[in-house]
Amino acid sequence: MKQKRGQLIILSGPSGAGKGTICEAALNTIPNLRVSISATTRMPRGKEQNGVEYFFLSEETFREKIEEGAFLEYAKVHDHYYGTPKAHIVQMLDEGVNVILEIDVQGAAQIKEQMGYGITIFIAPPSLSELKERLVDRKTDSFEQIALRMKNAQLELKQAQNYDYIIVNRTVDRAVSDLAAILRAEQCRSLNNLEIIQEMLM
Amino acid sequence: MKQKRGQLIILSGPSGAGKGTICEAALNTIPNLRVSISATTRMPRGKEQNGVEYFFLSEETFREKIEEGAFLEYAKVHDHYYGTPKAHIVQMLDEGVNVILEIDVQGAAQIKEQMGYGITIFIAPPSLSELKERLVDRKTDSFEQIALRMKNAQLELKQAQNYDYIIVNRTVDRAVSDLAAILRAEQCRSLNNLEIIQEMLM
Repeated sequence: MKQKRGQLIILSGPSGAGKGTICEAALNTIPNLRVSISATTRMPRGKEQNGVEYFFLSEETFREKIEEGAFLEYAKVHDHYYGTPKAHIVQMLDEGVNVILEIDVQGAAQIKEQMGYGITIFIAPPSLSELKERLVDRKTDSFEQIALRMKNAQLELKQAQNYDYIIVNRTVDRAVSDLAAILRAEQCRSLNNLEIIQEMLM
Repeated sequence: MKQKRGQLIILSGPSGAGKGTICEAALNTIPNLRVSISATTRMPRGKEQNGVEYFFLSEETFREKIEEGAFLEYAKVHDHYYGTPKAHIVQMLDEGVNVILEIDVQGAAQIKEQMGYGITIFIAPPSLSELKERLVDRKTDSFEQIALRMKNAQLELKQAQNYDYIIVNRTVDRAVSDLAAILRAEQCRSLNNLEIIQEMLM
């Protein structure tokens, strides 16, 4: 039997909903799961290593790769490019590894369409007041930034209905169990098991 | 918040694939799960109780209920009627209980359509030789009956692709974990979480 392709999990949600924490906990507890690494033209900070936090590229190389269609999506933010390299993801999936890709609500549907597959999951906070509390507790944002994030959160929440799944992040443990269940259930989808049925009927 | 409706799990698969064993193990391990009870006009056997193994009805009552449209499906087998009472299932679902309904491949799509919802799951054996081995090991069927069941199994397997999910029953434990994961994942489906999102946006 040939290697079964891994599953692509496309994760979005408002800032403060807990995507990062869930991803980290998921990578530590769910076997055969890796995260997609973005490419950027910004300089490495502190102990950041090429191929770990990001693929660090020169602006020239990044632009060449744009021309080649090497990115599933890319954007320029504050003078620096950020992009999602397709080959990196396809290689992991071909090896049978499940891949998590964190992306904003604009990018999610676009990536699923380009790849032709993917499980889209929206991470939602249990309530807006809880979301605000988490943003305040992080102590990384100014009052104005929090107000902006809260406004964006409402716009993002309106897109939640377009996702395959919504995980309401009440606790990290429960959210990670939801994610693990979704992965396991998706592996049981009929489309992913037709081969074994067809082998029996030959 | 109003009671969330339970999920209806419609389970099919060839005789010997392990539906019964999986159901029993699932009822013992997955919380908030019950099995749908069929109605029949045959007499109770041994310790069978009304409302436990079956709802035992007179032929007259059964026919009246057919007229009333009380059955999601029914069939006459060897002079006796068997049917799936709709009200019994709807009541459990309305109480928020998840309900398993075992039904043949002809009935599954029909029931999902009539109810307007339902998760269809096909239980498949890991191989036809394994299926035959299990049927032989049961020691309940004659050689001819086993040959007939094997022939039917191939016809049923051709329908597997029409189900939402296929669980390949390699071990009962794994199959029950698959079933639990499917239930949990389905609870995360966007459609089942729009209410909490809408509440946040009000």
